[in-house]
Amino acid sequence: MTESSDLKGVIAPLLTPFNHDGTIAEDLYINHAKRLLANGCVGLAPFGTTGEALSVGNTERMRLLEALVDSGISPSNLIPGTGLVNLIDTVALTKHAVTLGCAGAMTLPPFYFKGISENGLFTYFSKLIELVSDDQLQLYLYHIPQVAGVGIPPSVVARLHTAFPDQVVGIKDSSGDWDNTRALLEIENLLVYPGSELPIVEAMQLGAPGCISATANLNANAIAEVISLMHTGQTELALAKHTQVTNFRLTLQDYAPIPAQKRIMALWTGDDRWANVRPPLDIMATGKGQLLVDILAKKYLLTADSLTSQ
Amino acid sequence: MTESSDLKGVIAPLLTPFNHDGTIAEDLYINHAKRLLANGCVGLAPFGTTGEALSVGNTERMRLLEALVDSGISPSNLIPGTGLVNLIDTVALTKHAVTLGCAGAMTLPPFYFKGISENGLFTYFSKLIELVSDDQLQLYLYHIPQVAGVGIPPSVVARLHTAFPDQVVGIKDSSGDWDNTRALLEIENLLVYPGSELPIVEAMQLGAPGCISATANLNANAIAEVISLMHTGQTELALAKHTQVTNFRLTLQDYAPIPAQKRIMALWTGDDRWANVRPPLDIMATGKGQLLVDILAKKYLLTADSLTSQ
Repeated sequence: MTESSDLKGVIAPLLTPFNHDGTIAEDLYINHAKRLLANGCVGLAPFGTTGEALSVGNTERMRLLEALVDSGISPSNLIPGTGLVNLIDTVALTKHAVTLGCAGAMTLPPFYFKGISENGLFTYFSKLIELVSDDQLQLYLYHIPQVAGVGIPPSVVARLHTAFPDQVVGIKDSSGDWDNTRALLEIENLLVYPGSELPIVEAMQLGAPGCISATANLNANAIAEVISLMHTGQTELALAKHTQVTNFRLTLQDYAPIPAQKRIMALWTGDDRWANVRPPLDIMATGKGQLLVDILAKKYLLTADSLTSQ
Repeated sequence: MTESSDLKGVIAPLLTPFNHDGTIAEDLYINHAKRLLANGCVGLAPFGTTGEALSVGNTERMRLLEALVDSGISPSNLIPGTGLVNLIDTVALTKHAVTLGCAGAMTLPPFYFKGISENGLFTYFSKLIELVSDDQLQLYLYHIPQVAGVGIPPSVVARLHTAFPDQVVGIKDSSGDWDNTRALLEIENLLVYPGSELPIVEAMQLGAPGCISATANLNANAIAEVISLMHTGQTELALAKHTQVTNFRLTLQDYAPIPAQKRIMALWTGDDRWANVRPPLDIMATGKGQLLVDILAKKYLLTADSLTSQ
């Protein structure tokens, strides 16, 4: 049993707030991280798609991860994204996360070349493990083909997990493809986190420890409650509570999800910096965000209160 | 007239050779670069798709570019690729290239997020120019949507060229979409290099200064001859010579182009290191490469001699 497998529940892929000059708003970031851990999240996944990770510089990532740990957050709660396109810099970020004592590191496949072979993917991750060269490495693969343009087929995941059982410990499946998630859940001893709370009940019935979901930035408590009910065998109640969670997610899906969540954060917290995104994303206008905030309040009784304990 | 606009002819996006331990084979790289400049190429574009640029680390790129210049190659012959996914590290690579005195820098659009807006793309490149903050910057956009997963529509190219006429000076269009290339050629004073020699006659008739083509690594002399004939108004002769150039290119297109070209280089030069690729690409087996070398020799009379003056 690895330390990271204790992260049973909802893990939030942290939004990354930016100051008006484009630099990282470290104060907002750390406050947000602490609030999420105090309100439902068992862990945090800094530098995922939702965190605009690929718009953040390599040095910025390392500095920000250190800032989280320096603020008092235990690295055993952190699974930072470390996957870039090239192996050398991915190794550097991954080593940095392992050295800090993080519960794991989550890596994308190299996503520039398309149509790469299964052998090429396997070799890439094998080399990553070889070059990080640290027994403490707990690697989580990150499957999000609709964004990255390159996925990691279950056959490659299984091969890697078999070849490196102590290092390739899990995967985040953000494909939204239930058949893919189910195939992954059949791989023995692999920790499979769906990248959304939508299939969480079915996934937990097949052994998933929880989920890593963007909407946990805004709705962590409610998602955590569903997962907690599942962990204590209260499936009926979990399904009943799952309705709000599902509706919230589906409402957000009608919008560009990152700008929308950031604008909601700005309106809920009153700090306008929260709305900022880095190019190539576009900021969501205040008016559009206010309409969304109104919908959430009226239809789902969701307000700024959802950021803190209910 | 900018210095870089003097690069009228064929520009080679350099293959990047690796030693058997995966490190960069700097000796082979510099020899290759010098040989190409001595044999038909008017310029070199290190760190393009063909150069497996996105598999090369940021520090490696800077060191290797310096090695080219230190070897005596004039930076006025160099248009290195500097486009990564995040703006901060792209700015660092671009500044480095400008400071070295390179003729230009070629940048991909940010290619992680898909379906990004034209405004988002425009803002990204505007910020790049603002942050590089150097009048010497000569930016070439790099359009290769079938690989990157994100392209730069002609409307965005035109808007950038209008907003920054002294900095956004050109584009490499590797889409293989003639309608797109033609639309770009209609933008006044923009240097449009097709990313292939296939449409070079038509493109030059519409004002293209040459092409930036992967196959120039192996067939520079023949491509240079076609372009030279076009520049001196000998269209009929250019078209006749274009047949060999086209056939060579089309033969290679049946194979994974980078591993194939590298295996050919290994067989032609006798240095087996040339065949190495970095993951996620797969090396081409010697036997398969030998068959390809035989085809090139028999059908197109192309041998190792094509690497040097005819």
